[in-house]
Amino acid sequence: MKKRRILIVGGLAAGPSAASKAVRTNPNAEVILFEATETVSYGICEAPYAISGFIGDEAKLVVYTPERLSEAKGIQAKTLHLVEQIVPSEHKIVVRDLRNRSVVEYEYDKLILAMGATPKKLSVKGEDGRNVFPLSSREDTLNILNYIKNESPKNAAIIGGGYIGMEMAEALRAKGLDVTLIHRHRLPMSGLELGTRECILEELEQNGVHFVTNAKTEALLQNNDGRVRHIVTNRGTFETDIVIVAAGVEPNVSLAKGARVRLGPTGAIATDERQQTNVDDIYAAGDCCEVKNIVNGKPMYQPLATIASRAAWVAGENAAGGHAMFKGAIRAIAVKVFGMEIAHVGLSSAEAKESRFQVVTQTITASSKISMMPDARKITITLIIDQRSGRLLGANVFGGEGAVLRANTLGVAIQHKLTVDDISRLDLIYAPPFAPLWDPILVAANQAKKKL
Amino acid sequence: MKKRRILIVGGLAAGPSAASKAVRTNPNAEVILFEATETVSYGICEAPYAISGFIGDEAKLVVYTPERLSEAKGIQAKTLHLVEQIVPSEHKIVVRDLRNRSVVEYEYDKLILAMGATPKKLSVKGEDGRNVFPLSSREDTLNILNYIKNESPKNAAIIGGGYIGMEMAEALRAKGLDVTLIHRHRLPMSGLELGTRECILEELEQNGVHFVTNAKTEALLQNNDGRVRHIVTNRGTFETDIVIVAAGVEPNVSLAKGARVRLGPTGAIATDERQQTNVDDIYAAGDCCEVKNIVNGKPMYQPLATIASRAAWVAGENAAGGHAMFKGAIRAIAVKVFGMEIAHVGLSSAEAKESRFQVVTQTITASSKISMMPDARKITITLIIDQRSGRLLGANVFGGEGAVLRANTLGVAIQHKLTVDDISRLDLIYAPPFAPLWDPILVAANQAKKKL
Repeated sequence: MKKRRILIVGGLAAGPSAASKAVRTNPNAEVILFEATETVSYGICEAPYAISGFIGDEAKLVVYTPERLSEAKGIQAKTLHLVEQIVPSEHKIVVRDLRNRSVVEYEYDKLILAMGATPKKLSVKGEDGRNVFPLSSREDTLNILNYIKNESPKNAAIIGGGYIGMEMAEALRAKGLDVTLIHRHRLPMSGLELGTRECILEELEQNGVHFVTNAKTEALLQNNDGRVRHIVTNRGTFETDIVIVAAGVEPNVSLAKGARVRLGPTGAIATDERQQTNVDDIYAAGDCCEVKNIVNGKPMYQPLATIASRAAWVAGENAAGGHAMFKGAIRAIAVKVFGMEIAHVGLSSAEAKESRFQVVTQTITASSKISMMPDARKITITLIIDQRSGRLLGANVFGGEGAVLRANTLGVAIQHKLTVDDISRLDLIYAPPFAPLWDPILVAANQAKKKL
Repeated sequence: MKKRRILIVGGLAAGPSAASKAVRTNPNAEVILFEATETVSYGICEAPYAISGFIGDEAKLVVYTPERLSEAKGIQAKTLHLVEQIVPSEHKIVVRDLRNRSVVEYEYDKLILAMGATPKKLSVKGEDGRNVFPLSSREDTLNILNYIKNESPKNAAIIGGGYIGMEMAEALRAKGLDVTLIHRHRLPMSGLELGTRECILEELEQNGVHFVTNAKTEALLQNNDGRVRHIVTNRGTFETDIVIVAAGVEPNVSLAKGARVRLGPTGAIATDERQQTNVDDIYAAGDCCEVKNIVNGKPMYQPLATIASRAAWVAGENAAGGHAMFKGAIRAIAVKVFGMEIAHVGLSSAEAKESRFQVVTQTITASSKISMMPDARKITITLIIDQRSGRLLGANVFGGEGAVLRANTLGVAIQHKLTVDDISRLDLIYAPPFAPLWDPILVAANQAKKKL
């Protein structure tokens, strides 16, 4: 019998996960991974912590080298191989070897698309400056680290006040830089609730980040040496020695579009619960895909490693002949902004309203431990509730130690459709070093019950 | 209309909670609380942290003085009032005022029993020594603090290796004492799984606690000054300057028995979901009561502040004319032993077997964060599962930071009858400062699935 050949496009995160799962599911399968850069299996989520120096050795972010993928897992990983075309009718892909520019075709039995996402461009003059960096690959990480080491920049500008913007603000402050964060909106972190975002802004400013509000970047002005020294915005011009562009990402879908792989309403690749696309024998996973939000049943584009790896396992298992399903995600995100833990689980209140829920919210601030414990900290919880059913749809949790792990407890409640009344009856731990008699979760639920 | 009069016996924790809820439910009710000691509303759970000095001022443990209970909440709190008898047929109680030894009778419309529990005696010679202390009241806390301050003991002995024993071992080590912990069994913390208990023993020993295993205390030998200087056990004799007796508690039920209030199979007062006893117009709550374990449906005796306060709210609300219900508890406990967080949620494997579940367990150790983060710590999870249904019945979680809050997430799963497969599909947070890509909870569930 001919060996099943599974080809995988993309090697950053979802690709290697899918490949590993495919090999585990079917050890006889031939699994080949194509990656356009030199690096596979890279911990890009940890990059801000390598840049800050908290992780001392950036090389630790390389989870597997191509050689290790082959030796340890039996996966052929072809780096510097750019997949240029998919020909579904012939079950083949066209690949350019970037080392020697040669083009080779590979036939597949099953194909898994895991091309990931690309940082959005600003589309302004000067963006090609030598000191302008996105952060989405090992190359980016090393470029930033080297630039800081070799050029000792004093002022940094971050364009974009989302998750990466927050982490990079903290990382660059830790390196002693002055940080200006240029953001399109009044408050950082769109998607979170207003009160959460206000507190994040306060935390940024208390930690010396100069936050420029409602600012549209109009041009990056380069010196003769090709370095950007000024950022021109509608809110003024700012001096800088290094620019981080963190304006979000968009899914890499051009290859898929060329093969008539269907995109969903979010603009990312649409799959079913088995991670199959509309094209026979083509699966997809990771940041090039959308995912079903199981709270409102709608597709969402949420490029998160948790979602990517689950989808990748399912794609890998099914491509190898298995029958796995990924039912979707609630959205479960967290970020640390200096001393503040922030988590978002489930729908935002805006999403919940769009989804025709009758939304009521409840915000409380309570102590993380009984207040007589000197290390007690404040935790703020906003519950987003469907008034008709009493069901919890989403939550923001932020504040001191323990905020993020509490969000997981609320996440289970969201995923399993618990009502606020159910939550108020949860038997949660009380112990002086860990939580107060009435955990903030219970305080929030008890208060919310009064509104229903 | 005559005012409804609600009398409450016991003022440590459940009593004031029930009283407060009764007043909130029915502001016209006359609510009188009787407490035999001088102190009401005391944070006894925090006492080890006041003794260690972590909470600098012991007085912070007094949540409400009797005066404040009256002013802030409209509750009459009669301290140094010992309730000696209940006469249900006449709806009255007989109370001795310990200040002047006089006896007064009070009629009630509704009576709430919240007498709490008493530390078990060792029933050995010398137990009345001047330096022998239980830890269940403000008096005990102050006595221990004063004895340490005034007598500067060097060697401490703790009799009993349960929760209080653990907390006191840490507290006394923090004060610089040499600590010998004398325990009846081979391993500390009965009720936890074997592997958990072995790791706790290791943590104790690594922190300089001398743990004496399988030891039965036979006598406390006093010097002429009435101080115990030697503890005689079947495992040898140990020198000591102070003795803490932490051999568990038993519910205070003699008053209830005298009034023919029914006790349950655990020996504590039995109530229904409305916290009503078998005797008309008598409710009960707190450490004198048993509670329904909602995992196996059986009564359990679990003297915990969380259970006490929920039961107290329900008793208070119902005594005041409301219609509240307390459906029971799963058991959710945590303790810190030096650098180790330990939590127990749901059934133990032994309890699960007794309850005729077909028990399978799965233990994993995983990293609290992605291992390249320098502050990642190990977390061990044991899942206790019903093999037939796949349902999670209980869990032990221990290790570094975040172990205890993760137990709450598993607690929700237990309370809402989630299966291991459900748990493996939970959408949990991944972010470098907080959790790895596959949270230890998911690692445990994924491993456990292979056994089902």
